[in-house]
Amino acid sequence: MTELSEIGEFDLISKLTKDFKIQNKSTHKGIGDDAAVLSYTDKVLVSTDMLVEGVHFDLSYVPLKHLGYKAAVSNFSDVYAMNGIAKQITVSLAVSSRFQLEALTELYQGIQLACEQYGVDLIGGDTSSSTKGMVISITVLGEAKQTNVVYRNTAQTNDIVCVTGDLGAAYMGLQLLEREKNIFQAAPEIQPKLEGYDYILERQLKPEARLDVIEMFAELGIKPHAMIDISDGLSSEILHICNQSNKGCKLYEEKIPVAPETIRMAEELNMDPVVAAMNGGEDYELLFTISEPDFQKIKKSADITAIGYIADASAGVDLIAMDGVKVPIVAQGWNTMQQ
Amino acid sequence: MTELSEIGEFDLISKLTKDFKIQNKSTHKGIGDDAAVLSYTDKVLVSTDMLVEGVHFDLSYVPLKHLGYKAAVSNFSDVYAMNGIAKQITVSLAVSSRFQLEALTELYQGIQLACEQYGVDLIGGDTSSSTKGMVISITVLGEAKQTNVVYRNTAQTNDIVCVTGDLGAAYMGLQLLEREKNIFQAAPEIQPKLEGYDYILERQLKPEARLDVIEMFAELGIKPHAMIDISDGLSSEILHICNQSNKGCKLYEEKIPVAPETIRMAEELNMDPVVAAMNGGEDYELLFTISEPDFQKIKKSADITAIGYIADASAGVDLIAMDGVKVPIVAQGWNTMQQ
Repeated sequence: MTELSEIGEFDLISKLTKDFKIQNKSTHKGIGDDAAVLSYTDKVLVSTDMLVEGVHFDLSYVPLKHLGYKAAVSNFSDVYAMNGIAKQITVSLAVSSRFQLEALTELYQGIQLACEQYGVDLIGGDTSSSTKGMVISITVLGEAKQTNVVYRNTAQTNDIVCVTGDLGAAYMGLQLLEREKNIFQAAPEIQPKLEGYDYILERQLKPEARLDVIEMFAELGIKPHAMIDISDGLSSEILHICNQSNKGCKLYEEKIPVAPETIRMAEELNMDPVVAAMNGGEDYELLFTISEPDFQKIKKSADITAIGYIADASAGVDLIAMDGVKVPIVAQGWNTMQQ
Repeated sequence: MTELSEIGEFDLISKLTKDFKIQNKSTHKGIGDDAAVLSYTDKVLVSTDMLVEGVHFDLSYVPLKHLGYKAAVSNFSDVYAMNGIAKQITVSLAVSSRFQLEALTELYQGIQLACEQYGVDLIGGDTSSSTKGMVISITVLGEAKQTNVVYRNTAQTNDIVCVTGDLGAAYMGLQLLEREKNIFQAAPEIQPKLEGYDYILERQLKPEARLDVIEMFAELGIKPHAMIDISDGLSSEILHICNQSNKGCKLYEEKIPVAPETIRMAEELNMDPVVAAMNGGEDYELLFTISEPDFQKIKKSADITAIGYIADASAGVDLIAMDGVKVPIVAQGWNTMQQ
């Protein structure tokens, strides 16, 4: 193992980034100067996220390669949520002396895999020591034509509310990992039971972002009216769209797509799978509202589900439960400041 | 005092950012969606820095407002070092429960002051809890015409090597603060003696970036061949320029601009002020190499000093000491990974 104290900062950066290839024409100059230089012809999209060990991730069960992949992909997702294409990231990292070069190499291998998979270039960053644990800060840049950018605040009354994929699986994957961690801590001789839970574990540990959906919109020449990615749970995200658009909505519990594996895990833990879908977060699916004619063009896609419709603000923001009872939606997403 | 746990993340962000005004036409959409949307006509410059409490700053003597100002300005400096104009920043913050709303408000007041002073817009960020201390990650975006961008790797043989302002003062300010902290820790009844040291304290606690120099280059229609900002000390920065340009250089110790206040503090602490200038860092002055004819146009400026010239790589990278002895320059800048 190689201690980071044996390597200078510039050596470390070149070791960690040597296998990254530049894939985009818009990346004029990447790592190696005071700033990267980019050539954009359309609008520039910028988003940033910070992940703190012990708050956002637990290295006792998250492999570093997966962490790198997820950290990158969750940032790409913010650009897709604007109907844009992610093009570049910067990665800043603070790590305590507990981490060796080999650990950071694994983290960067995950970031590299995500960059290759989604056609994104690593163009800069910063590496420093921390007094405790690991902190990762990623900024993503992306591109979109001005007329294509989709905001949160432009939902229209009578729009169909759609989600991609299924919801709640990432949250149930986390519950499983936490359960097995607790069992292991109480009795280290018992091996974690993770077999047969592949789907929810993959959703938690190695989520994907929906570039494919953005590409489908472009191919079909359609544009949602409002869009957001589901990082904090459906409740929190639909409230952002409705509040910022000054609209109400009706969502139908029976329509919310939940995978069988998610339901199975929820039953095992005596939890309601709809709670996981509404408040779990980290699914990185897209929530969007779209006109009825445009919805007709995409409804054949098995991976898009209509879950309700946008109404005037006076109608409120409600979930219609299986039994027909109307329940106001309140944000219970992960609020990292309150954890 | 308001505990952060009493406020939700979105409330906190709106409280911290409510007084920021958008100043640039290129900021199409700032805070409030999945990503900010920017309109650039020229090249996009991007740089990022992470600051960790206990590694990069010590809150026992750094006021939070100054910290915010310095964190922002040091990022702007990276864009000026490319001969560009800083336009936007994102600010991500992780803080432990030791910090209250009032502390973060002070930090953001410093960031806001820097943004107003330098014409930069805050366009996004992330706020989360940390398990220990404060971590600040800032990404800056700036703009420059392609033909104006100045890199580190394009110094030419016979270029004049210039620095702006004076060097070593920020480092001596830090030494003073550390001395007074140690005295205070040993004997809390003794008040810190900081009067009469205003210049070096200001250079450490509230540095400025050299937007004025970039504007002067534009007015005079001149462009340095290579440029970098002095964040890690002159030694480290001239080595970046020489190594990346595959050149050598001769710098003259007697030419290096050091303020009288810096010399006085160094004498008080029995230190060599030139060591502070060469290896201290955090001055955020610009180091650039320029053709002799272009140098003639700027040499009247009292704030620019020629300190040597670029030579072929075979000449080596040397400092000619006061006594005429040639000393090879080696990097001894702050290497945060090795602290």
